[in-house]
Amino acid sequence: MEDREHPFTSFDYQMMSRAIKLARQGIYTTAPNPNVGCVIAKDGEIIGEGFHFRAGEPHAEVHALRAAAGNTAGATAYVTLEPCSHYGRTPPCAEALIKSQVTRVVCAMQDPNPQVAGRGIRMLQEAGIEVQVGLLEQDAKALNPAFIKRMQTGMPFVQLKMAASLDGRTALKNGVSQWITSPQARQDVQVYRAQAGAILSSSKTVLDDNASLAVRWDELPGALKQNYPEQELRQPARVILDRQQQLTSDLRLYQSGGKVIRIFGENQSTDCGGADIQVPLTESGHLDLYQVLHKLATEHNINHVWVEAGATLAASFIEQALVDELIVYMAPKLMGADGQGVVNLLGLESMDQAINLNIRDVRMVGPDIRLVADIKKNAQIKKE
Amino acid sequence: MEDREHPFTSFDYQMMSRAIKLARQGIYTTAPNPNVGCVIAKDGEIIGEGFHFRAGEPHAEVHALRAAAGNTAGATAYVTLEPCSHYGRTPPCAEALIKSQVTRVVCAMQDPNPQVAGRGIRMLQEAGIEVQVGLLEQDAKALNPAFIKRMQTGMPFVQLKMAASLDGRTALKNGVSQWITSPQARQDVQVYRAQAGAILSSSKTVLDDNASLAVRWDELPGALKQNYPEQELRQPARVILDRQQQLTSDLRLYQSGGKVIRIFGENQSTDCGGADIQVPLTESGHLDLYQVLHKLATEHNINHVWVEAGATLAASFIEQALVDELIVYMAPKLMGADGQGVVNLLGLESMDQAINLNIRDVRMVGPDIRLVADIKKNAQIKKE
Repeated sequence: MEDREHPFTSFDYQMMSRAIKLARQGIYTTAPNPNVGCVIAKDGEIIGEGFHFRAGEPHAEVHALRAAAGNTAGATAYVTLEPCSHYGRTPPCAEALIKSQVTRVVCAMQDPNPQVAGRGIRMLQEAGIEVQVGLLEQDAKALNPAFIKRMQTGMPFVQLKMAASLDGRTALKNGVSQWITSPQARQDVQVYRAQAGAILSSSKTVLDDNASLAVRWDELPGALKQNYPEQELRQPARVILDRQQQLTSDLRLYQSGGKVIRIFGENQSTDCGGADIQVPLTESGHLDLYQVLHKLATEHNINHVWVEAGATLAASFIEQALVDELIVYMAPKLMGADGQGVVNLLGLESMDQAINLNIRDVRMVGPDIRLVADIKKNAQIKKE
Repeated sequence: MEDREHPFTSFDYQMMSRAIKLARQGIYTTAPNPNVGCVIAKDGEIIGEGFHFRAGEPHAEVHALRAAAGNTAGATAYVTLEPCSHYGRTPPCAEALIKSQVTRVVCAMQDPNPQVAGRGIRMLQEAGIEVQVGLLEQDAKALNPAFIKRMQTGMPFVQLKMAASLDGRTALKNGVSQWITSPQARQDVQVYRAQAGAILSSSKTVLDDNASLAVRWDELPGALKQNYPEQELRQPARVILDRQQQLTSDLRLYQSGGKVIRIFGENQSTDCGGADIQVPLTESGHLDLYQVLHKLATEHNINHVWVEAGATLAASFIEQALVDELIVYMAPKLMGADGQGVVNLLGLESMDQAINLNIRDVRMVGPDIRLVADIKKNAQIKKE
């Protein structure tokens, strides 16, 4: 996509780097919108900059133009994403840029939505603005993997959290399991939850621990809290598989402000509320997880689902190839060969049925290890 | 131990660093001797240096004195370990240093053998040589953890290797298990084997795969092979628990040059050969592992045992608190909750019976993860 005839200057790279850095400041708040940053420069100096903070509030370009305050004629705008061309909750940014009399717009990437990609660029070009696309495109894509996936596929980006001992156990044979991972690992989980559009779990998990599955602001790392005041906290939706309709309104789940979306079977007579979702049951009587995710993306605009599940639900997500990224916490413990396994995969008969992963990152989180992996080949052992 | 009245100079640190670096060149070959390096300096310049390469061959000091060739009067010798004071296979180094007319000797650490510690230093001091001890002592100790442990406790340093999938399995339910870890991980194992004084396993493991348990020179990393020619290869002893006397001389175990030590029960009528060891059986009829290790250290001068065992033997070593370091390879695979567990610990009833580890190092080895951990608290679940 990079414009070969007009190679970018070192100054262009600096400005787009800055815009990408700004965009990152929105990662806890912009959902379901993408993270976008914008820098406006003139005569070799930054005259305005901004980033998108929260859906419904101004886009990055508008913040940057406001900061440049009328000095924008002849300037260059660096934007991490193609400016929007449609009237949504805010007027189109392409129009605002045209009005500002900037003469050049550099975009890191096109809009990932195939329905609208290129429209903003065309609108700018038709107004006589020079437009270049593709500067630091990979970095810009890395800002919004979940938004991009939803736009391109109608499915959310799915992270599956697992936590086990070093020998792959979540509980002793007798079920005892409290405090396997460290406070540092639990804090790390809060950071992941805070970035997600939805936290998905089962009513069993909710009921077992009376879990709120919310982001607890005071458990976020100190550096994050400094830049993210408690009153700005965005609670992800909590999506609970509740085929047997066991959730009751007195649970802690309902006491943390965020939306709760219950998932029921399609032919069940339910007290299905506005936010709830009904999906078909599979032949084996389970909720169709593909449909759950698809409806979350298309009906609830959820880009990014963080799954905290027991061993059986985790296995279903993996077997059905619905997981983009595994986040595995391993506590430095051995819990015994008769303990409960972390993923309830069963019945593998040859090694080529094993689930193969690519490990993308491994590091210590306090005394624990955290792996980030994606799934290389899904054996599709058990078709639902 | 550091001499506070005579603080070391920056030049002293440089020289001892160099000596420690030299000492490391012996890590594949000196067993059962320690790794030792020596630098001789005069008027701010190195005039000779050397390291101990192989038991029976000259010590580091002798190599360094030879290299300095008669120019040693008034020089300083930097040695990573207190010079020896006794006649062994070579004459005492303290005597060689006295004859060389060096006027100052700096040792990183005393001899760890409590029977002889300080004797070499005293011999030097009595000859009028200025002696200082403790420069870079921690680094010098890190050269010889196994030698130091044997000298101080009469027990070898024990590393237990484990290899499993990310969900803690070594085989599928049906026993299939070929190629769990990568070629890179298996090469890494060769490097560990090459450093050990003995590789310990069971006759079952040997018979199942007709395993040689030897160091295969051509599988060592290229950089190592360059500095360690094939003809210098030292084969660790292979120590095989063989209570039922199943080993036969046609096995590959006997075809790789190194010594094989079989372990039998004490009251068995055996064809126990010269190198073999008999130990008491425990109440449950197993070979007493503490006695095995103690005899390897005291009767065979083995500093460092590398254990490659199945899940049951691994559990016994861990339960009996005989492991200094766990080396865990984890392949990026999920093999299923009905697969075979990596450590056959059984019957834990509360989380405080779990085996707690400290993770010392975690890194990628090819596509796999390698952890190095020590055991924090041994629950001693099952007394043998």
